[in-house]
Amino acid sequence: MSTKKPIRIGMIGTGLMGRIHSNGYNQVPHFFPEQQHTPVLQVVCSRNEASVKAFAEQWGYAAYETDWRAVIARDDVDAIDICTPNDTHAEIAIAAAEAGKMILCEKPLARTVAEGMRMVEAVEKAGVANTVWYNYRRVPAVTLAKQIVDSGKLGKIFHYRANFLQDWTINADLPQGGTALWRLDADAAGSGVTGDLLAHCIDTAMWLNGSIIDVSAMTETFVKERMHQLTGKVQPVGIDDACLFHCHFENGSLGLFEATRYARGHKALYTFEINGEHASIRWDLHDMNRMEYFDHTDESTVRGWRSILVTDGDQPYMNRWWIPGTSIGYEHTFTHQVADFMKSLDDGTPCAPTFRDALETQKVCEAVLKSARSRSWQDTGAEAMGG
Amino acid sequence: MSTKKPIRIGMIGTGLMGRIHSNGYNQVPHFFPEQQHTPVLQVVCSRNEASVKAFAEQWGYAAYETDWRAVIARDDVDAIDICTPNDTHAEIAIAAAEAGKMILCEKPLARTVAEGMRMVEAVEKAGVANTVWYNYRRVPAVTLAKQIVDSGKLGKIFHYRANFLQDWTINADLPQGGTALWRLDADAAGSGVTGDLLAHCIDTAMWLNGSIIDVSAMTETFVKERMHQLTGKVQPVGIDDACLFHCHFENGSLGLFEATRYARGHKALYTFEINGEHASIRWDLHDMNRMEYFDHTDESTVRGWRSILVTDGDQPYMNRWWIPGTSIGYEHTFTHQVADFMKSLDDGTPCAPTFRDALETQKVCEAVLKSARSRSWQDTGAEAMGG
Amino acid sequence: MSTKKPIRIGMIGTGLMGRIHSNGYNQVPHFFPEQQHTPVLQVVCSRNEASVKAFAEQWGYAAYETDWRAVIARDDVDAIDICTPNDTHAEIAIAAAEAGKMILCEKPLARTVAEGMRMVEAVEKAGVANTVWYNYRRVPAVTLAKQIVDSGKLGKIFHYRANFLQDWTINADLPQGGTALWRLDADAAGSGVTGDLLAHCIDTAMWLNGSIIDVSAMTETFVKERMHQLTGKVQPVGIDDACLFHCHFENGSLGLFEATRYARGHKALYTFEINGEHASIRWDLHDMNRMEYFDHTDESTVRGWRSILVTDGDQPYMNRWWIPGTSIGYEHTFTHQVADFMKSLDDGTPCAPTFRDALETQKVCEAVLKSARSRSWQDTGAEAMGG
Amino acid sequence: MSTKKPIRIGMIGTGLMGRIHSNGYNQVPHFFPEQQHTPVLQVVCSRNEASVKAFAEQWGYAAYETDWRAVIARDDVDAIDICTPNDTHAEIAIAAAEAGKMILCEKPLARTVAEGMRMVEAVEKAGVANTVWYNYRRVPAVTLAKQIVDSGKLGKIFHYRANFLQDWTINADLPQGGTALWRLDADAAGSGVTGDLLAHCIDTAMWLNGSIIDVSAMTETFVKERMHQLTGKVQPVGIDDACLFHCHFENGSLGLFEATRYARGHKALYTFEINGEHASIRWDLHDMNRMEYFDHTDESTVRGWRSILVTDGDQPYMNRWWIPGTSIGYEHTFTHQVADFMKSLDDGTPCAPTFRDALETQKVCEAVLKSARSRSWQDTGAEAMGG
Repeated sequence: MSTKKPIRIGMIGTGLMGRIHSNGYNQVPHFFPEQQHTPVLQVVCSRNEASVKAFAEQWGYAAYETDWRAVIARDDVDAIDICTPNDTHAEIAIAAAEAGKMILCEKPLARTVAEGMRMVEAVEKAGVANTVWYNYRRVPAVTLAKQIVDSGKLGKIFHYRANFLQDWTINADLPQGGTALWRLDADAAGSGVTGDLLAHCIDTAMWLNGSIIDVSAMTETFVKERMHQLTGKVQPVGIDDACLFHCHFENGSLGLFEATRYARGHKALYTFEINGEHASIRWDLHDMNRMEYFDHTDESTVRGWRSILVTDGDQPYMNRWWIPGTSIGYEHTFTHQVADFMKSLDDGTPCAPTFRDALETQKVCEAVLKSARSRSWQDTGAEAMGG
Repeated sequence: MSTKKPIRIGMIGTGLMGRIHSNGYNQVPHFFPEQQHTPVLQVVCSRNEASVKAFAEQWGYAAYETDWRAVIARDDVDAIDICTPNDTHAEIAIAAAEAGKMILCEKPLARTVAEGMRMVEAVEKAGVANTVWYNYRRVPAVTLAKQIVDSGKLGKIFHYRANFLQDWTINADLPQGGTALWRLDADAAGSGVTGDLLAHCIDTAMWLNGSIIDVSAMTETFVKERMHQLTGKVQPVGIDDACLFHCHFENGSLGLFEATRYARGHKALYTFEINGEHASIRWDLHDMNRMEYFDHTDESTVRGWRSILVTDGDQPYMNRWWIPGTSIGYEHTFTHQVADFMKSLDDGTPCAPTFRDALETQKVCEAVLKSARSRSWQDTGAEAMGG
Repeated sequence: MSTKKPIRIGMIGTGLMGRIHSNGYNQVPHFFPEQQHTPVLQVVCSRNEASVKAFAEQWGYAAYETDWRAVIARDDVDAIDICTPNDTHAEIAIAAAEAGKMILCEKPLARTVAEGMRMVEAVEKAGVANTVWYNYRRVPAVTLAKQIVDSGKLGKIFHYRANFLQDWTINADLPQGGTALWRLDADAAGSGVTGDLLAHCIDTAMWLNGSIIDVSAMTETFVKERMHQLTGKVQPVGIDDACLFHCHFENGSLGLFEATRYARGHKALYTFEINGEHASIRWDLHDMNRMEYFDHTDESTVRGWRSILVTDGDQPYMNRWWIPGTSIGYEHTFTHQVADFMKSLDDGTPCAPTFRDALETQKVCEAVLKSARSRSWQDTGAEAMGG
Repeated sequence: MSTKKPIRIGMIGTGLMGRIHSNGYNQVPHFFPEQQHTPVLQVVCSRNEASVKAFAEQWGYAAYETDWRAVIARDDVDAIDICTPNDTHAEIAIAAAEAGKMILCEKPLARTVAEGMRMVEAVEKAGVANTVWYNYRRVPAVTLAKQIVDSGKLGKIFHYRANFLQDWTINADLPQGGTALWRLDADAAGSGVTGDLLAHCIDTAMWLNGSIIDVSAMTETFVKERMHQLTGKVQPVGIDDACLFHCHFENGSLGLFEATRYARGHKALYTFEINGEHASIRWDLHDMNRMEYFDHTDESTVRGWRSILVTDGDQPYMNRWWIPGTSIGYEHTFTHQVADFMKSLDDGTPCAPTFRDALETQKVCEAVLKSARSRSWQDTGAEAMGG
């Protein structure tokens, strides 16, 4: 292992994403041993010293800090991983870029297009490697869907539909804000389900089906006031609890998207479906190791949706894991992204989605929110992604 | 049987709906023997004498006609069943009402609100029994859904979503118009999937969840020209191949609707889902004897979507059929509507959906098409249905 | 219709099967109008005059009787349909054959092989058309399975497994015997789930996969005593509540069968699966309009179980019904059997399964029960079926 | 971490199980940080030096050996993990026990009851901690099933059925024996699917439903000869390709089991179902984060099988992982077993299944094979398991 080039990670944030990214860094060397770049857990940062120290011990970081600026200032850090709330992404990313660090930023890229634009400019000016954690691209079944789409098997695309349904904020007594619930605080999160959930759907959609050119949206805030964790006061809720939109893709297909945290019975039901002239594809995060596929060119009497278990060695990523029929889980999508980032360093290529790719998603999110506010169609200005 | 009051049916039209309604009239006496009103297949009408004669023999009609006006003129007919293309509904219905006949009209009620309004006025002025064949209300699982909604088990409703996905018009060589394909001809049909498919979704939705007050829609015509069956010429296609909309219900919930004939792999995938504060419901026409139900008040560790087989005698309509675990099919929904119509005559009550109820669906359809054309939100003006 | 040859039915029995067969006779002329032989509901028989009279009126029989011998004696009856408990099949069938009547006998053929043998001899001696109502062969998806098996697509067969799971007798307070519950009375039924449920599984299995040559079985009676409806006394239960067996088919494949009325949560879960060298098939009565099919010759990365909706016009029987995507139900399987019987008269061919075919199923049932009693393997002596 | 007690692992074997156990040892400290005993990857052993050296580097072992005896002889090893073919389990385990090492042995415990008995005696005499890797007990959904069974919610149990279906050996050109294919070599494996697959089903079954007291089985070897990897010669195949049996449990319920490697379309379809008086449970490895549950005490009209996503923090093990709705995979079941083993050391209790528990499974496997050979029922002599 001595001949490998270590990429020393400076992790900012110790929440869910801090944990699952740390796991990814730990796991990649075991499952992608041929890679020349290899992650090293160098330093982790969070404001509470006791908890960040415990986190560092638990996950095997060599050091810890309580100020993210100190992490960026360290010479022994090669890459900054941003796992803090959305309102901090721009400031940290720009500082990291200016310090010449690689950056792996949690999604969404930013709260606004304007913030995101500055981040893109910063990393491109600095010429540092950068990626955004839209992890669902790395679900093997979703990567397989991309391969099938790119193969042309679907023919002309007519429809793309996706939803992301949750039910965890129905209780009106749930507070907003603070460490655990910043996603409910518009200042910290920028938006509600649009940035949190729809951003995932949009990233996948534009990766699979090309650019979204205009949108017509509606949003709703079902619970109008919640106590704020930090102030203790009942305050208006600024986020969108639900967001629905339809749209045109550049290829002429119609899109339909919905995200909500008020769909009783669904924990994290991210599904998408693509209907093409010759074939269709469906996927569902609740059964993530499957892809459903309908091929109209099959013999007519025995034609049907195929339930494809994506666990074989000839399917994406699966030669790294166990045996046919045995599943992998949510965390593996992040491990795959670490592996792909390391591989992009081996190859000297970008690791999609880059900040620039993620900015296109940001443009759609912003158009969606603007459309909902104005009750009118909005052009997105989004361009085709790389990757 | 001699003590029963016969309702002598005059059937206009011998297509799919003519066949399946005829079956319903034949079946009701066998399965609802206690009813006092009982249908009699008196006369059937279609323009082609050879084919209408054969139809009459096959289904057991006592007589046939080749001009619908002759049917309405007959003294031995009590009720007119309209199974002809949409562009004929208004004229036939108004004439029938004026002749004092009861009317059972295929959906959609009409091509436009204006047509529908005249039909409502005619039946109400004449005081004749009337109903529109929105048959999916009579799927036992859908009727059960209605009972659950009305019981209050769902609590406050947040979301209603429905789609109706087909794939039979993808082939660009398919002609438009004529007897078999009038649904593709805008003059005959009034609209494409909006009147054909979404109208079903809207009827069920307003029955289950109350009135839709405003809509924002998009439509698309994927195949722009098709040969017309009657003229033999390639002509512009005037119908909507796909229609998507979101909306507000009067109860504050958000609606999301989609219909298309370009969803490869789906034959007649009508599904809906309702998400409430305490519980949710899902249904799918492709597995029509099931209802899925999630009850958040179940014990947390064993809480899950229940897959309910709706085949037991204590579930709607099922005491009329066979034994628990054995299914009924598509045709039974029409048979149930015949039975409910006869029962409404026994009881002296309206048989929902009446023309007036169906007019509310028409208003939403019209607002949807207007919204799509104008790229703007439209109020529907729809009121709550009876029934 | 005057040129058609009427087959005047004499129906013995007015229970569930009496109803569903009557429905079949009523429906066939509407859906199979080209057939030259056509059923006529001539006379129905049951011991209670009031109830048989009502039944005759409800279903449209021209006459009724209260003694089955009177039905057989009538000159205006061409075919006897036996829908009475199993202990009466032999006597009625033999008398009917001797009177030169065609016979349609409910399954199982008889209580024992000895009874069944006498019945086969009687119909063959008399040369009368005969069939046994193993209706599941006429589920379109099951008929499609037969076509696929016969096409050779599966290659060498390794495994056949089937089960029939119900839960309606778990309650120990349920009585046995009498009109409604004769299936729990060993004298009337001959056996429990073996004749009632496994007989279906065995008929389908031998039709699809050839003869079963030896069996090893176990049975259980979970509730040892029940009150008898006719005597009012608590009596030992003589039937098998559950029966499981494994076996060899003549083609070298292994069979696994299970039936029970104690599988909580299952109403009538009849499923089978066939695993071949190149492909596999699965079917499930609870979703009877689907067939699942796995074809190993599909491209490896997109290979999966196909969920085939069997509702298209090019699939068995479905050109008689509605439109693609719309389902038929349990009763249709009986209607198909009536149609096939009438067609067999048109064609002058036997209508499988004949009494002789059904005798092979009887042999397996008897070997199963003997194996369970003796705790040993038993040869069945069954031969390949026709059809 | 310095205050924790390291358990230094000596891993024998570097195949699939060597990899997945190594992953478990690596992961436990990150996800179970409160445990006082913590695994350390001390030494790994395999005969090929180049490959074991690479394995050690990849997984982070401090050292490697090429002779398992050398591992046992080391003072810096606390626990031996046996991941070698079945024919080596007894010798290694007995030597390890005599050396006072803890032992974690891959399943099945041994090839025969006699071998297993000697292993049990050895560990009990030595008083060393021991466990067998029947990992499926640690699927959260399966552990939840155990909790439900133990709660008494099911009432009296009538039926237990399980199968384990694969399709990877259908190709007759697949060789037998050697490093990759020792599972097809009867000398190395002891048996075919009985020890490899059914042993899992039996362990789960007896854990959930108590002891199996007698069995009636059949086995089949579909491909009679295969080339042996080590000799290059075509040799008879000694293993069972498929094994089916039915049985009685001590609690009076009936069991039905099947395993095969010839079920085209199934990769690793391990499923089980338990039917009780009041409720039933189903589980399927291909969708391992779900449990299906039917509760007859639910209100009758909305009663149905519940599809329970087992991903919430109040369900077994899931408070260690991510967020509701996000899945874990196959490898996590092994990680759970490492965690439970470490916890058993913290607590000073056995870690089920112990060698003694696994011997009961061995007794059933042996009775099954004997029954198949002798074509007769066999008593198992199995006793109730602990844990």
